[in-house]
Amino acid sequence: MGELIEPRVLKGFRDFLPEKEAERLAIVRTLEEVFRLFGFAPIDTPVLEYAEVLLGKGGGETDKQVYRFTDHGGRDVALRYDLTIPFARFMAAHLAELPLPFKRWHAAKVWRGENTQRGRYREFVQVDFDIVGVDSAAADLEILLLMRESVRALSAGRFAIHFAHRGVFNSFLARIGAEGRAVEILRAIDKERKIGQEATREMLAEVAGAENAARILAFTRIEGSFAETLEKLAQAAGSECDGVRRLTDLGRCLGELGDAASFLLDPSITRGLDYYTGIVFETFLGDLPAIGSVCSGGRYNDLASLYTKQRLPGVGASIGLDRLMAAREELGLAGTRKSSGGAVVLLLDEGLLGGCQRIAAAFRAAGIPAEVYPEKKKIAVQFAWAEKKGIPLAVLFGEQESGGGLMGLRDLRTRQSETGLTLENAIGRAKQLLQ
Amino acid sequence: MGELIEPRVLKGFRDFLPEKEAERLAIVRTLEEVFRLFGFAPIDTPVLEYAEVLLGKGGGETDKQVYRFTDHGGRDVALRYDLTIPFARFMAAHLAELPLPFKRWHAAKVWRGENTQRGRYREFVQVDFDIVGVDSAAADLEILLLMRESVRALSAGRFAIHFAHRGVFNSFLARIGAEGRAVEILRAIDKERKIGQEATREMLAEVAGAENAARILAFTRIEGSFAETLEKLAQAAGSECDGVRRLTDLGRCLGELGDAASFLLDPSITRGLDYYTGIVFETFLGDLPAIGSVCSGGRYNDLASLYTKQRLPGVGASIGLDRLMAAREELGLAGTRKSSGGAVVLLLDEGLLGGCQRIAAAFRAAGIPAEVYPEKKKIAVQFAWAEKKGIPLAVLFGEQESGGGLMGLRDLRTRQSETGLTLENAIGRAKQLLQ
Repeated sequence: MGELIEPRVLKGFRDFLPEKEAERLAIVRTLEEVFRLFGFAPIDTPVLEYAEVLLGKGGGETDKQVYRFTDHGGRDVALRYDLTIPFARFMAAHLAELPLPFKRWHAAKVWRGENTQRGRYREFVQVDFDIVGVDSAAADLEILLLMRESVRALSAGRFAIHFAHRGVFNSFLARIGAEGRAVEILRAIDKERKIGQEATREMLAEVAGAENAARILAFTRIEGSFAETLEKLAQAAGSECDGVRRLTDLGRCLGELGDAASFLLDPSITRGLDYYTGIVFETFLGDLPAIGSVCSGGRYNDLASLYTKQRLPGVGASIGLDRLMAAREELGLAGTRKSSGGAVVLLLDEGLLGGCQRIAAAFRAAGIPAEVYPEKKKIAVQFAWAEKKGIPLAVLFGEQESGGGLMGLRDLRTRQSETGLTLENAIGRAKQLLQ
Repeated sequence: MGELIEPRVLKGFRDFLPEKEAERLAIVRTLEEVFRLFGFAPIDTPVLEYAEVLLGKGGGETDKQVYRFTDHGGRDVALRYDLTIPFARFMAAHLAELPLPFKRWHAAKVWRGENTQRGRYREFVQVDFDIVGVDSAAADLEILLLMRESVRALSAGRFAIHFAHRGVFNSFLARIGAEGRAVEILRAIDKERKIGQEATREMLAEVAGAENAARILAFTRIEGSFAETLEKLAQAAGSECDGVRRLTDLGRCLGELGDAASFLLDPSITRGLDYYTGIVFETFLGDLPAIGSVCSGGRYNDLASLYTKQRLPGVGASIGLDRLMAAREELGLAGTRKSSGGAVVLLLDEGLLGGCQRIAAAFRAAGIPAEVYPEKKKIAVQFAWAEKKGIPLAVLFGEQESGGGLMGLRDLRTRQSETGLTLENAIGRAKQLLQ
């Protein structure tokens, strides 16, 4: 026996204890069911890939946050840092096998060696869903509707999906002669929620001049209704702009669906990244706007140009599961369920173990989680364990009862007991008590 | 645009396409429900840990199969290569927060840089379940019952759980004066299924002499009934042996539960590893014994001695998900479901997109997966896509129908159509057709 090793985890990494992990699994299961109903298929890709595949050929210095190393075979490999690049590689590799347009979802861990000081994690779960192989209002609309159903299913209170169009923004910038600085301008706008309007105005003025800074800020304001904002965008970008037509179509469909209330045309949404070319969107919680967007994404021109010549336009979104779980916790919506609810069959006599397991099996067959306490201990110890585990019911099956196959049932929450129950009666009562 | 990058994955790593991934998810969901009914809680741990934690202090040369590297912060880190060591570390770290005895399950990927020539993967999923903090027949029995329910739920045909007891084996080896070579002897026995009886006899003779080799082989044979085999073990190991008493208790309980048929007392089960101290078990498929054990494990003395002084005896098993999926495929039990079943609403006119999405939403609300084809294309293209995706039904909602809100429904399997249906009628018919 050497010295003990400290059972610590790496900074930015976490264990998930039963309550939190059960909640995370429940969230993913809920999303999985929504995706299934929308006809999205699950896929999976390796955690580890060739660094060249994840970072591109010039990837030598690209990203210091990526976990990258040389494996046993001398290969330059890396842990995936998002689910988009692996999806692009996946599409290029399996084009012939997949129906195009292709709709997939993928919920999995990704890793980034980020600064952990701002409550960021180095290991976290992303949930992505995309439609690729098509550029249409129908696909954009479907992603918007799926976002709404997903966030709604996760019960984090009121929310709104803010969306805009990058093509419209670009047309506007071209008209005011600022297209050469588009990336910096987009980044400045993207920061406004954090740094405020005046700081943003200063950043914009530095990049595009004071006059254009004022025009750009005016462009990004919401004007009353969808129609009014759209009208402003049409004037600023030109009504011949494809993006304006796309927004018009989307607005009409959302109106027809009676869904306008969940969606907000908000020209300040830019999503910083150069990658997006069409609609872009973010989702804010009405009761917790400061936490930032819990579901974001947009339309891109070409998913997999690094790996294939086939152009794959697409649209997709990503749910920030950790942020969403943090929001649910802050809103008091998380972790109310400590256990799956059910019964413990106390082990009062080791000779009755077979009988206890038979009772547990009958409970399970009736859909009630049940377990036998795993050794003979004082009854107070067994009760305390059940309470710590959050099990609401206990079955008492001892010498006295076992003769006639009868048992007792105790509700550990109210501390009320019943005795002399048949197995059938005990299951019936348990079902009532667990409702 | 530079040269294209080949979209390849690392040797021993795999993409999961929708059909396979849906099957894997369904298997894990099925197991999850069994675990829930047995009162086992889910946990999760980081993929990446300190190498010292995973490999121990002397771990410099321990395991060449482990993916190990230095991270940005100069830390010596590694990808987990099983779920047992992280679980041990987890228990030591969270002892005060967890109810003891503690029951957990964990389904997650692990990585080993193994030789891939024998159809082994370098990234694969393990599903582990354990009860720690107790050494009792009750806990052993519960793991055996949970193994049976798990394997049964996975529908891979007939199976039997073979079990033995390492303590009994050790007592027997002590009696014949061979305890000093226990590890080599156990490994030789463990290999018999692969290398055959004669090669095993030779290995044993080399380690323990010809006479003991014969005795050891005789010890490992099954004798008729459970009682007969147990009687032989009792004679060979001494009836005062704790392990014999444990096997006696387990045999009695399995008999009382009427479950003897799924379980076989088989003294040839040793599980090679030095780690096990009590019962050990493997699960073989009746229709595919050659594939090896699909669920194995045993009882250990002390889970977390590397990290804590608190002794944590336990018992647990691990399901080899990849092996099980390979078995299901070989037995023709896998991948019969190509899609989730449901309907595509064809997009016949872009002006009707809102109406199409309204139809899809109504189908989903009725529990039927539904999606709108994401752009206006020739109807033949839309049908071909649906067939490739395995969608059985198509809704036709075009100019002609939209006036009265009526639609057509086509069964893509039989190519039969109905027209003039209201939304309510279409949903009703779809439900009938999908049954």
